[in-house]
Amino acid sequence: MSKLRVHNFAVSLDGFATGEGQSTKAAFGHAQPEFLTWFARIQLWRGLEPGGKLGLDEAIASAWGTNIGAEIMGRNKFRPTTGPWPADGWQGWWGDEPPFGTPCFVMTHWEREPISVGGTTFHFVSGTPAEVLERARDAADGQDVRLGGGPTTVNEFLAADLVDYLHVVLVPIVLGRGVRLWDGLEGMQQRYTVESVTAPSGATHLFFTRA
Amino acid sequence: MSKLRVHNFAVSLDGFATGEGQSTKAAFGHAQPEFLTWFARIQLWRGLEPGGKLGLDEAIASAWGTNIGAEIMGRNKFRPTTGPWPADGWQGWWGDEPPFGTPCFVMTHWEREPISVGGTTFHFVSGTPAEVLERARDAADGQDVRLGGGPTTVNEFLAADLVDYLHVVLVPIVLGRGVRLWDGLEGMQQRYTVESVTAPSGATHLFFTRA
Repeated sequence: MSKLRVHNFAVSLDGFATGEGQSTKAAFGHAQPEFLTWFARIQLWRGLEPGGKLGLDEAIASAWGTNIGAEIMGRNKFRPTTGPWPADGWQGWWGDEPPFGTPCFVMTHWEREPISVGGTTFHFVSGTPAEVLERARDAADGQDVRLGGGPTTVNEFLAADLVDYLHVVLVPIVLGRGVRLWDGLEGMQQRYTVESVTAPSGATHLFFTRA
Repeated sequence: MSKLRVHNFAVSLDGFATGEGQSTKAAFGHAQPEFLTWFARIQLWRGLEPGGKLGLDEAIASAWGTNIGAEIMGRNKFRPTTGPWPADGWQGWWGDEPPFGTPCFVMTHWEREPISVGGTTFHFVSGTPAEVLERARDAADGQDVRLGGGPTTVNEFLAADLVDYLHVVLVPIVLGRGVRLWDGLEGMQQRYTVESVTAPSGATHLFFTRA
């Protein structure tokens, strides 16, 4: 059965996965400087890369792409603005060759035609988490589906009990404000087996696997 | 210089250090079952004890009593009820021989005469965190002062930048509601050197030492 997986999802000690004031200039809002410092330290983005540091954090992060056939992301991950899509040619944060290389399903109330950027096609779809997951599973063709964030989207899928695997990277910072991952999820550990490990970087990896 | 230290302070993934609905029946409110299960697993209370498990968690927890000459605690740690003190003979949670063995300063707006239980004397004092710390330091006579909780009290001392050492035990559970440790403390990591380690139990220990 194709699983729904969350990877490399950074959360602060106070549970925030993004800061306040997101914009197309700062994907993480006021949390951008601290988060980018941490992401650089642990090369969280995709794990092992040519020339990169090869440590525990990077090895763990590398699971990101294995056996993934599609991604689901929230509107804010693709473009952190609300309402109708501006006609300004925005194609996401990832330049001419986004790293996904699979169909990506962007959840939005403002459907529009798909766009292709490099080897990645972005589909703009509305619907419940379960409905969007069904579409992504069809596209993944037997492989797993990655749930790419942001926190509101991951929270909705966790609340609907659709997530099979959640990898959180706890960074030892207090953000104070932003969007929390855990709201409304009291007792969710009871649905999962949980493993934890702290890397020499100081980041703590938590692995929630559906029990 | 005598330091102010917090030890063995358990916090959930969503930042709660106690649950909702505290009472003299359940010190941690709705969080009581999960927290007590974790406290039993990691013997968090005072660390190494005769006949107890001797692992990483217990070794770390044992630092609790070293070079401590006084404790400060919030009213809710001594008795989780508000308003005037009921005349029912309540002497805290700890029976005839509380483990402290030092003067303990209970912060309250309702001052009263001290009581002695076993080798521990509880003083009931009002004042700002800095004022109460000064009294406790006098009593500690050159040794350090432990700040014993609960979360509201620790939060106030952190906000006033009076804490030299903070040991948090992150337990991988989502409590959903209660009293948060981190509120209003955005960026506090910048005042500290932070180390982390996950024990085989699954608890993650975070050590904040004043930079």
